[in-house]
Amino acid sequence: MIDVEELRDCYTKTPSKIVLLVVDGLGGLAHPDTGRSELETANTPNLDALAQVSACGLTTPVLPGVAPGSGPGHLALFGYDPLKHQIGRGALEALGIEVELAPGDVAARGNFCTVDGDGLLTDRRAGRIPTKLSAPICDRLDRIEIPGVQVDVFSVQDYRFVLRLRGEGLSEFVTETDPQVTGAKALAVKPLKPEAQKTADLVNEFVKQAAQLLSEEERANMLLLRGFAQMPSLPPMGEVYRLDPAAIAAYPMYRGLATVAGMNVIPTGKTFADEVDTLRANWDKHDFFFIHYKPADAAGEDGDFDAKVRCLEELDPFIPEILALEPDVLMVAGDHATPAIMAAHSWHPVPFMLHSKLTLGQGIPTFDEKACALGAIGSIPATSVMVLGLSHAGKMTKFGP
Amino acid sequence: MIDVEELRDCYTKTPSKIVLLVVDGLGGLAHPDTGRSELETANTPNLDALAQVSACGLTTPVLPGVAPGSGPGHLALFGYDPLKHQIGRGALEALGIEVELAPGDVAARGNFCTVDGDGLLTDRRAGRIPTKLSAPICDRLDRIEIPGVQVDVFSVQDYRFVLRLRGEGLSEFVTETDPQVTGAKALAVKPLKPEAQKTADLVNEFVKQAAQLLSEEERANMLLLRGFAQMPSLPPMGEVYRLDPAAIAAYPMYRGLATVAGMNVIPTGKTFADEVDTLRANWDKHDFFFIHYKPADAAGEDGDFDAKVRCLEELDPFIPEILALEPDVLMVAGDHATPAIMAAHSWHPVPFMLHSKLTLGQGIPTFDEKACALGAIGSIPATSVMVLGLSHAGKMTKFGP
Repeated sequence: MIDVEELRDCYTKTPSKIVLLVVDGLGGLAHPDTGRSELETANTPNLDALAQVSACGLTTPVLPGVAPGSGPGHLALFGYDPLKHQIGRGALEALGIEVELAPGDVAARGNFCTVDGDGLLTDRRAGRIPTKLSAPICDRLDRIEIPGVQVDVFSVQDYRFVLRLRGEGLSEFVTETDPQVTGAKALAVKPLKPEAQKTADLVNEFVKQAAQLLSEEERANMLLLRGFAQMPSLPPMGEVYRLDPAAIAAYPMYRGLATVAGMNVIPTGKTFADEVDTLRANWDKHDFFFIHYKPADAAGEDGDFDAKVRCLEELDPFIPEILALEPDVLMVAGDHATPAIMAAHSWHPVPFMLHSKLTLGQGIPTFDEKACALGAIGSIPATSVMVLGLSHAGKMTKFGP
Repeated sequence: MIDVEELRDCYTKTPSKIVLLVVDGLGGLAHPDTGRSELETANTPNLDALAQVSACGLTTPVLPGVAPGSGPGHLALFGYDPLKHQIGRGALEALGIEVELAPGDVAARGNFCTVDGDGLLTDRRAGRIPTKLSAPICDRLDRIEIPGVQVDVFSVQDYRFVLRLRGEGLSEFVTETDPQVTGAKALAVKPLKPEAQKTADLVNEFVKQAAQLLSEEERANMLLLRGFAQMPSLPPMGEVYRLDPAAIAAYPMYRGLATVAGMNVIPTGKTFADEVDTLRANWDKHDFFFIHYKPADAAGEDGDFDAKVRCLEELDPFIPEILALEPDVLMVAGDHATPAIMAAHSWHPVPFMLHSKLTLGQGIPTFDEKACALGAIGSIPATSVMVLGLSHAGKMTKFGP
């Protein structure tokens, strides 16, 4: 598996333009009644026509058998070895609500929970209290002051929040407070490395003050903290690949991932139609566009096969709109499969196609899992997607004399 | 990707014989008028018949999307990880004209160029002066003497030459003098590591003396130096694989690459017919033969689709001649694709076939890109070719007990 900086000397600046369309959760599995996957079931004439003049294949997000989260799934497509560049849960949660994590900041994912009179957990999710009740509690916690560190608490949704610590000498190497079972007490935070003692002390002080503040609450009378993490420092895509990359994504998490990779995030609306409008309006300003289509993954996660088919069909008419911009390279990829029959992210190789003026004669009849397996590109690690896009766009020189 | 020494304990000496036929630039892309590649277009009954009783597949020279030069393309086929074992431009240029590079020697690729009265570049290639004019100039430069180092200048072709430095404590880690643009002065050489200061000083002294010698020339009144490189030291193929390997190649560059890999180079003639005669005459003397077919690559680089088809057709009748020697394993491979429509080396996976008495029943109908994608070997890194040849020849023992 290649990592982003390995071929640094081969990348070269040209005016050609690349579009990477990431269809979240693109791949699927056969419906038991029909033996056909979501892509095989969907009526997608434009994706199929494009596959007939494209080089197609399958991408493996991390390694065979490994189902990735959104973080590694996207980082791999951007060219970063996802085993080497990992984003911790707290940092990803912060990205998901666009909370800025500066270098040195530590973020944790927080849950409100319910404890009994002895401090023993009775509900790890505080009865899934709604945001309208939890957000004011977050505001109260946000006012906690601890000398030597800036403490901020941000509401996410329902019982979930993000804790951000900002200050000198913080470390992500501390243990979690969530005992993962009811009937136990929240755990004290311990340092996993000597230099994390200060962070552990600060977090324990925060939990102590928070427990007092929450003690009168009916359901959210305690909190649990998990996934302490700092933001990884990645070599910026633009610098490594000599691109001026832009990201267009309706969901904050994907804007955040693009930011971590060093892309410029262009503000856009809530729908994919808005995203395509944004792409069109900014076409002259960048030479690489990452554009994100979310609905297929959401339907897959819901386990709704028909809804996922419908989401793929709704994406299809946008393909000619993107092609009308005449990108030198258009790639259609997925960060991972989300088979509706699993209602979860999966490890399966994901259909991939790359269209350029060099891919004539390499096509396959339809864009789906089975046809892509016979495509000209074959089965590749997802980390090779960027290299293929750059080479087809004439942005790579020969390796070695 | 495997590297040459990784399975060292598995290789075993046997009398069986392996032929690795490297068809330079073998792979191609579809002609826009027909949708068929060079291999699909060519009438090659012998290659096709062989594919029907061979195990076939596709090889990726370096990584998906990466177009290799001749150096990495061949080293990979010989089993050396091309990302780990890199040959610098100066060293490859020296190999190309069979200039010996001993350990410690530093070579650079030189260009004659034209400068104006202020020393500013007006032509980076000195009007592409012909060899008959540039060779005598090389002879004059060759007589430059600098204390502490032996300086040799070898004519390559037209405006190109090789500078070789021989002496104690030389380093390849120095900058180039070519500013890559006209209107600028040639750059002074600087050390990239502290230990390269001596080399930088020596090269700057050479350039100073050369500039004086050349000042009266009309076109070649200055020179540029690029790609300072020492020859990499590779574990010799013969020792690692327990072979007595021989190379037969009409072009010096490929004889040089074989030498770097530790093969014995057998003198041969200018044509592939000469090479096959040489193979026949030396059949009893070695157990591994690398034999190189150049014309397909040259036609591809010229962008001449029909010529490349013809070159493949001209290779075809030699297949029965090689088979008549009854090699235990015959492999037909390419160092990279050279699609005529690109007129350049490319990154595309390259057709590969391996014939042995074990491959009956694994065949495909024809030897081309699409058929090989469905072959028994699948898609593999080019660095696995040697291991496959050795195992099919009974020269590998089990890995692990």
